[in-house]
Amino acid sequence: MPRQAYVNGRYVPHRDAAVHIEDRGYQFADGVYEVAPVVRGTLVDEAPHLDRLERSLRELRIDMPISRAALKLISRELMRRNGLTNGFLYMQVTRGVAPRDHKFPKVSKPALVMTTRQSKPQSAELLARGVAVITIPDQRWDRCDIKSISLLPNVLGKQEAVEAEAQEAWMVDRDGMITEGTSTNAWIVTDDNRLVTRDTSNAILGGITRMSLLALVRAEGVAVEERPFSLEEVQNAREAFLTSSTNFVMPVTRIDGKPVGNGHPGLLTGKLREHYMGYVEDLKAAG
Amino acid sequence: MPRQAYVNGRYVPHRDAAVHIEDRGYQFADGVYEVAPVVRGTLVDEAPHLDRLERSLRELRIDMPISRAALKLISRELMRRNGLTNGFLYMQVTRGVAPRDHKFPKVSKPALVMTTRQSKPQSAELLARGVAVITIPDQRWDRCDIKSISLLPNVLGKQEAVEAEAQEAWMVDRDGMITEGTSTNAWIVTDDNRLVTRDTSNAILGGITRMSLLALVRAEGVAVEERPFSLEEVQNAREAFLTSSTNFVMPVTRIDGKPVGNGHPGLLTGKLREHYMGYVEDLKAAG
Repeated sequence: MPRQAYVNGRYVPHRDAAVHIEDRGYQFADGVYEVAPVVRGTLVDEAPHLDRLERSLRELRIDMPISRAALKLISRELMRRNGLTNGFLYMQVTRGVAPRDHKFPKVSKPALVMTTRQSKPQSAELLARGVAVITIPDQRWDRCDIKSISLLPNVLGKQEAVEAEAQEAWMVDRDGMITEGTSTNAWIVTDDNRLVTRDTSNAILGGITRMSLLALVRAEGVAVEERPFSLEEVQNAREAFLTSSTNFVMPVTRIDGKPVGNGHPGLLTGKLREHYMGYVEDLKAAG
Repeated sequence: MPRQAYVNGRYVPHRDAAVHIEDRGYQFADGVYEVAPVVRGTLVDEAPHLDRLERSLRELRIDMPISRAALKLISRELMRRNGLTNGFLYMQVTRGVAPRDHKFPKVSKPALVMTTRQSKPQSAELLARGVAVITIPDQRWDRCDIKSISLLPNVLGKQEAVEAEAQEAWMVDRDGMITEGTSTNAWIVTDDNRLVTRDTSNAILGGITRMSLLALVRAEGVAVEERPFSLEEVQNAREAFLTSSTNFVMPVTRIDGKPVGNGHPGLLTGKLREHYMGYVEDLKAAG
């Protein structure tokens, strides 16, 4: 059976899944999305992903297209139809179709699209080597806390990273402080051994993996500072890593072409990854 | 015959016009657009609109989906099919369809969508009264010179204006200077009688109506200053107006609830509008 997608009330073959050209997502980036990881058939952190979806929609004053309960049922059904074991569930909600006009339409039905993608487990070799990151100016808008589809600056930043043979670009704000990666959150262990990640504000997206990892770290009694950190701190860091729904916890071993610490994945990074993956396994057992 | 749209090589009924859910325009706002006015069957300033389209695409490294000559032919054919006399031609080009991933796909065919919309001539009553504008913080990204579909902040700004019973919101940068409206350029006549509009940079979109009007104004020997102007200058302005492909030259008579000058459309504004509409009429005669 070909892979299916869910589009506005119907399950359709993925290759035929379409939306109207005047869907405001297409003309105005007037919508939001979520990407939730699926590990051995279990949706990871579903509740916080749905909480964030609801928050993003509230901030843009878009209604939930269907109830949360219905959304959960459809997620499961789509995963089942696609035989999804490892990969991601993608959800996108836009303000819907209306004749093109910037202001909110008087009447519009929010559009809902869901897809899944099967993916291979993370490469052990990549985890053992760690990834390279570059730094670039953060040129995004002022509401990065909303998980909107207005992702053009993120696209351009990621492409810049790829062309520099790196996996991610960390963005630097006007004050010389790191905000986050183009699709990941940024973490460092400073030269005086402090675990640091940027505090949540309008300047970054509150990552779900970031949030879960913070809770785990604190439960373990590891001190962690949520605050802006500078490019200089990054350059002198002992360890660095990034988190996201698609990377979980990924060591960063080069920044702007220079090794981080001894150039190998950090010890604390390794421990945190282990904790996090243990947490994901426990979800599976509990689910 | 129902209204038609042009979508990736085909003329289709507007209501059925669709794009794939993994068109990067829908998931990443990875695309650009143009809106060109049509007056009595004539496309206004077609060449500069196409120049700007090409520039926006170059900045994002998206190929032109078809040749400029083909684009012109299709525009005309679509206008003919839809019997368009007064209104707009809308063109949108995205990086095309590819499995969701921030970085540019190795292979993708740029997507092209064109629509037309018939509209009534501008209301004489509105022109005689002028429009109200509010001012809001400019929270957009740093590349407003690219006419991208990443328009969510513009949407939110326009909605704020509408809810304040205004027609437009002028955006104020971190230095307290006006950048532009959410879909229009901003102009004032200062209290010491200088005609001012913001200079082009990454902070504003180089409007085509703005550009044409500047050329006309200069040809008439009217002095005009292209520079940032402050919120304070706006508050003390004698006249104010906005320009865009859908408004041409529109008097602004209230800003943040207070009258501009004597609260009536300004004299110079009126003259400039007359010049501009004369220019549009001449295009018609020449075309």
